Amino acid sequence: MKAAIVGATGYGGIELIRILHNHPKIEDITVFSSSQEGKTMAESYPHVSEIVKLTLGDIQPERLNEHDVVFLSTPPGVSADLSEKLSAETKIIDLSGDLRLKQAETYSAWYQRESASESLLQKAVYGLTEWHKEEIESAVILSNPGCYATASLLGAAPIAQYNAVDTSQLIIDAKSGTTGAGRSPSAMTHFSEMNDNFKVYKVNQHKHTPEIEQELENWTNKQSPVTFTPHLVPMTRGIMATMYAPLQAGWSKDDIEELYHSLYDNHPFVRVRGVDTFPATKEVYGTNYCDIGFTVDERTGRLTVVSVIDNLMKGASGQAVQNMNIMFGYPEKEGLDFIPIYP
Amino acid sequence: MKAAIVGATGYGGIELIRILHNHPKIEDITVFSSSQEGKTMAESYPHVSEIVKLTLGDIQPERLNEHDVVFLSTPPGVSADLSEKLSAETKIIDLSGDLRLKQAETYSAWYQRESASESLLQKAVYGLTEWHKEEIESAVILSNPGCYATASLLGAAPIAQYNAVDTSQLIIDAKSGTTGAGRSPSAMTHFSEMNDNFKVYKVNQHKHTPEIEQELENWTNKQSPVTFTPHLVPMTRGIMATMYAPLQAGWSKDDIEELYHSLYDNHPFVRVRGVDTFPATKEVYGTNYCDIGFTVDERTGRLTVVSVIDNLMKGASGQAVQNMNIMFGYPEKEGLDFIPIYP
Amino acid sequence: MKAAIVGATGYGGIELIRILHNHPKIEDITVFSSSQEGKTMAESYPHVSEIVKLTLGDIQPERLNEHDVVFLSTPPGVSADLSEKLSAETKIIDLSGDLRLKQAETYSAWYQRESASESLLQKAVYGLTEWHKEEIESAVILSNPGCYATASLLGAAPIAQYNAVDTSQLIIDAKSGTTGAGRSPSAMTHFSEMNDNFKVYKVNQHKHTPEIEQELENWTNKQSPVTFTPHLVPMTRGIMATMYAPLQAGWSKDDIEELYHSLYDNHPFVRVRGVDTFPATKEVYGTNYCDIGFTVDERTGRLTVVSVIDNLMKGASGQAVQNMNIMFGYPEKEGLDFIPIYP
Amino acid sequence: MKAAIVGATGYGGIELIRILHNHPKIEDITVFSSSQEGKTMAESYPHVSEIVKLTLGDIQPERLNEHDVVFLSTPPGVSADLSEKLSAETKIIDLSGDLRLKQAETYSAWYQRESASESLLQKAVYGLTEWHKEEIESAVILSNPGCYATASLLGAAPIAQYNAVDTSQLIIDAKSGTTGAGRSPSAMTHFSEMNDNFKVYKVNQHKHTPEIEQELENWTNKQSPVTFTPHLVPMTRGIMATMYAPLQAGWSKDDIEELYHSLYDNHPFVRVRGVDTFPATKEVYGTNYCDIGFTVDERTGRLTVVSVIDNLMKGASGQAVQNMNIMFGYPEKEGLDFIPIYP
Repeated sequence: MKAAIVGATGYGGIELIRILHNHPKIEDITVFSSSQEGKTMAESYPHVSEIVKLTLGDIQPERLNEHDVVFLSTPPGVSADLSEKLSAETKIIDLSGDLRLKQAETYSAWYQRESASESLLQKAVYGLTEWHKEEIESAVILSNPGCYATASLLGAAPIAQYNAVDTSQLIIDAKSGTTGAGRSPSAMTHFSEMNDNFKVYKVNQHKHTPEIEQELENWTNKQSPVTFTPHLVPMTRGIMATMYAPLQAGWSKDDIEELYHSLYDNHPFVRVRGVDTFPATKEVYGTNYCDIGFTVDERTGRLTVVSVIDNLMKGASGQAVQNMNIMFGYPEKEGLDFIPIYP
Repeated sequence: MKAAIVGATGYGGIELIRILHNHPKIEDITVFSSSQEGKTMAESYPHVSEIVKLTLGDIQPERLNEHDVVFLSTPPGVSADLSEKLSAETKIIDLSGDLRLKQAETYSAWYQRESASESLLQKAVYGLTEWHKEEIESAVILSNPGCYATASLLGAAPIAQYNAVDTSQLIIDAKSGTTGAGRSPSAMTHFSEMNDNFKVYKVNQHKHTPEIEQELENWTNKQSPVTFTPHLVPMTRGIMATMYAPLQAGWSKDDIEELYHSLYDNHPFVRVRGVDTFPATKEVYGTNYCDIGFTVDERTGRLTVVSVIDNLMKGASGQAVQNMNIMFGYPEKEGLDFIPIYP
Repeated sequence: MKAAIVGATGYGGIELIRILHNHPKIEDITVFSSSQEGKTMAESYPHVSEIVKLTLGDIQPERLNEHDVVFLSTPPGVSADLSEKLSAETKIIDLSGDLRLKQAETYSAWYQRESASESLLQKAVYGLTEWHKEEIESAVILSNPGCYATASLLGAAPIAQYNAVDTSQLIIDAKSGTTGAGRSPSAMTHFSEMNDNFKVYKVNQHKHTPEIEQELENWTNKQSPVTFTPHLVPMTRGIMATMYAPLQAGWSKDDIEELYHSLYDNHPFVRVRGVDTFPATKEVYGTNYCDIGFTVDERTGRLTVVSVIDNLMKGASGQAVQNMNIMFGYPEKEGLDFIPIYP
Repeated sequence: MKAAIVGATGYGGIELIRILHNHPKIEDITVFSSSQEGKTMAESYPHVSEIVKLTLGDIQPERLNEHDVVFLSTPPGVSADLSEKLSAETKIIDLSGDLRLKQAETYSAWYQRESASESLLQKAVYGLTEWHKEEIESAVILSNPGCYATASLLGAAPIAQYNAVDTSQLIIDAKSGTTGAGRSPSAMTHFSEMNDNFKVYKVNQHKHTPEIEQELENWTNKQSPVTFTPHLVPMTRGIMATMYAPLQAGWSKDDIEELYHSLYDNHPFVRVRGVDTFPATKEVYGTNYCDIGFTVDERTGRLTVVSVIDNLMKGASGQAVQNMNIMFGYPEKEGLDFIPIYP
């Protein structure tokens, strides 16, 4: 099987290479870049010297069509455009935000740009793997979820779907390592100003917010604007979403525990840590796991759910490969069977 | 003026020395330790070599009584005990949690130990400087607030006092650097396991929770159990409290801005950053400032307040000296006029 | 094939588990601990929850003998003692320093304790894989090199063996992440005092010094006391050894380049980066690679060699498994074919 | 007294403001920038909100002449040019590298650009304070030393001047925090690629090398090309220079100790830690101290000297103010009497 990676020099791209290079079903990887064609991957990333011997090509739809699967790890707007140009049989996994929102006007409002075509938006399957497995099996265009959205939605799915909380009361306080901001140097992620520092940003304005809300609406059949606050942690990888909502009447701590276990115990990449046992971000470092802990405070009646992922893995390239496995009928864990690197 | 520091080898103690050493009103500092008597401060902290020439003495009440002010930077239980042994005229500033809670049973429930005597608890003035200035002026025993409580309360005070939110709906998601955990090495704060990692701990169980609730009750005349979640950030100093509550009817974003400015603009150590402008922890590094930003989300009707401090300064020793200044009639900023170290 | 890991709760132990768990030749892993018997690995390391289902047993020689290979990741003195108690057929890979030095008196002088028995010292093969492959193939007791020694010796081997420098002039300035200091919390590696800090320690006194000298002597047939200075970097993993020596007459930069390539190009885990191209520690993160760069300064006539490894991999558990592969006739890269995690 | 800061938005500039804002002799600070005129300092650096109320002006020589002292914290080439345009009476303290090297051709060779005019180079006094106090007293144009040069030269001065080592044998292995690379974001100092990483760069090619050699030549009357290797540490501030050279015959460890103490004990900002006692970088954090430790290895006959500074303080703005104090006849420590922030 042949895989193409477009935008291979970004962090999503190099992480795809790390996974696919050893993936048993992938025979051949081709890499593409709009700006660094002719360069080898090792020039851009010396850590793959002597291991990955790939040279970046320029992006041509006909060349992409020669692959069984095309991963798009590209800036906003590119995949909306490029997806239209590929043959209808080419399976596409899009890691950008272009195809995640089904409503064009919601996209425009949050992304401040025009959305992809209506038909493309409808064709794209939202790849939150654990909750869309059937659709993913038959997807041709897969839209891979955002990193914050993945951590938040996996944590909130059980309580939203089973009405254990009123999702319009949901508050998500999220914290991320800096790789979520990509490889382009910026003042925000300049080492001298990020080290030994903790920042909050885009309060109520992060693009992953409507993605979370869209999925919650699918599950609850009601619109629930949520409060979503992202923060930057002085670390490289990892997201923790700490979520709060009042527990609905009739639910106990034990019910919640049973609910999470019943829904996730057969999913290999979600590890329910259980009541009062909370994960740290490094406990999933370099892997596709999402670890979830929770508790109920009897004094306030509020439920707290904590969900952690590696933003470049389950939050991006890991989940993309997990989706690829399902789209092509491979075992879900194929090529993703890493143990977290700790410490 | 003569100052004694008991427990001088902890982080609160050495930070007191950093401030008091150059404080214009302090002529003499004496340092005490229960375990390291006879050692010099420079042996324990080489960074003060040739600057601080103090030798640790053992703790004797009569020696402490020779000082105008005694700072207690001691483990749980010590100050409850030691305060009783000092003369009634000796002014005490207690940085521990022993005297913060007025209800003995609340103390026992959260600290899992017996509280100080009723009379001591009642005598101790809670030193959240900006909100207790008058009582602090005449205090003999001052109980210095907890680091998380300081960040949270300074951020929440205006909206609580003016009923802009229902405090029983308050959710506080707090993040701290590791120095809050003290100088004793532990698995939790071992560099190899804290670096590049983000942790949540003591969910709904942190000792600063009742301290926050007690103060909110004073301000609102109603009990409001709050949700308080502390997290550990891989950084040395700094706390950020991100707080959420639905805005009450009749309040606008502009009202909130006006409220914060009207209440804090005459307080030298609180910097209101204003609407949609949020501070990062490093922007107060090494200083006594508390910086506050906020916004209102029209989609959800929720107010978000972000408050940052340096946990060892405004969250401990800085506020302690600010309180000392007020107790002794000095200018509030005396000896605390630092510019944050950045970057 | 069955592997036993003694001292499985240390960083060397958990890293062995990370590798061996997916190693194609290992069917069964048993873990042992002197202090945590009865505990599961996941209790000690939550990141392996649901992945590694092993319970720690107490250390009994007869149980160890049931395994094809026994890894000893134990404190000083344990393996010297335990190795004697195992059957002569049990293959042992010792990650401690007990069996590295061939001269008992050198061991005593540097380790401040009595050495293992003479016969054990002589029987143990020093496992610097790239340079002792033949002996390793037939080794029964393998002494795995120290982390600093590995980085230093792989970098210096070509120039020492081919007399491109006078090894008695060799200066090694080494820098390590904190995991080299192990899992026990200490003042030195307390996050609050290690973060944003850089330390030098054990100047001219580190135990890996005689190990480096012993190997240099083997290669050059002369005693060469070297200058070795270890430093602690505020990072989790990684060692960089920056090495200096005057280049001998007759050698050019190009000669050096050719020498390194000729000696290492057929070794899968050494990547010669070449003249004026230097590796950073993160470029080998999580892998068994040793990356080497070098240059010659024409102004001073000095050669500079920079060698980096991941101290827990090529500096400990990775090299241990590489040695196991060779001892058992497996392909050298078996189970070690990771791409570095970057960033 | 009135001070102007040109290039106030860089790290050198904001650190000057931190010092001068509270300096007893400075009544007035004016700030200049070539690119951000009209902006306030607080817009560029929110941490000085409400403290520093300065607006950046554009750079006009006549306006600069109105100040008693002009600090130039500017990119290469600017001060060579600007210094010519200021009146001959205006005292200038140049933090750039433009005026450090006395030989125009050496400058051109290392900086790859034309040097300042011969007359300017000769007029500029090299401000390594402890060793040029007399010239500094009468300096009109002061060239402030480089950060690496300061750490290296203060550490090596005693042994060079007293011929305890042959300086042509000197090897300097230096490590720096990232602020030395300035405020402009870059791939090298992007948080995601610098965190948990350790890098070596500009091996034998760093611009501070000839500055070190020039000073050594002044002291020893012989040319001594040195080996100088800079490294980047994942920390914000701090430099450690670890230096190696064979001890000359006739010198003992005790002699060295006596030498350092005799030369530095009357200098307030150099703290000799003494034999076998080595400083960590954080022990001088935020201050103008240079801490020095050393040892002699009897096995190799080599001396090791370790010198640490805060690169933005003694390595830049702190030493600049120290020099200002001397140029204007103030006490050397005026305005610099900080205790290191630790932890």
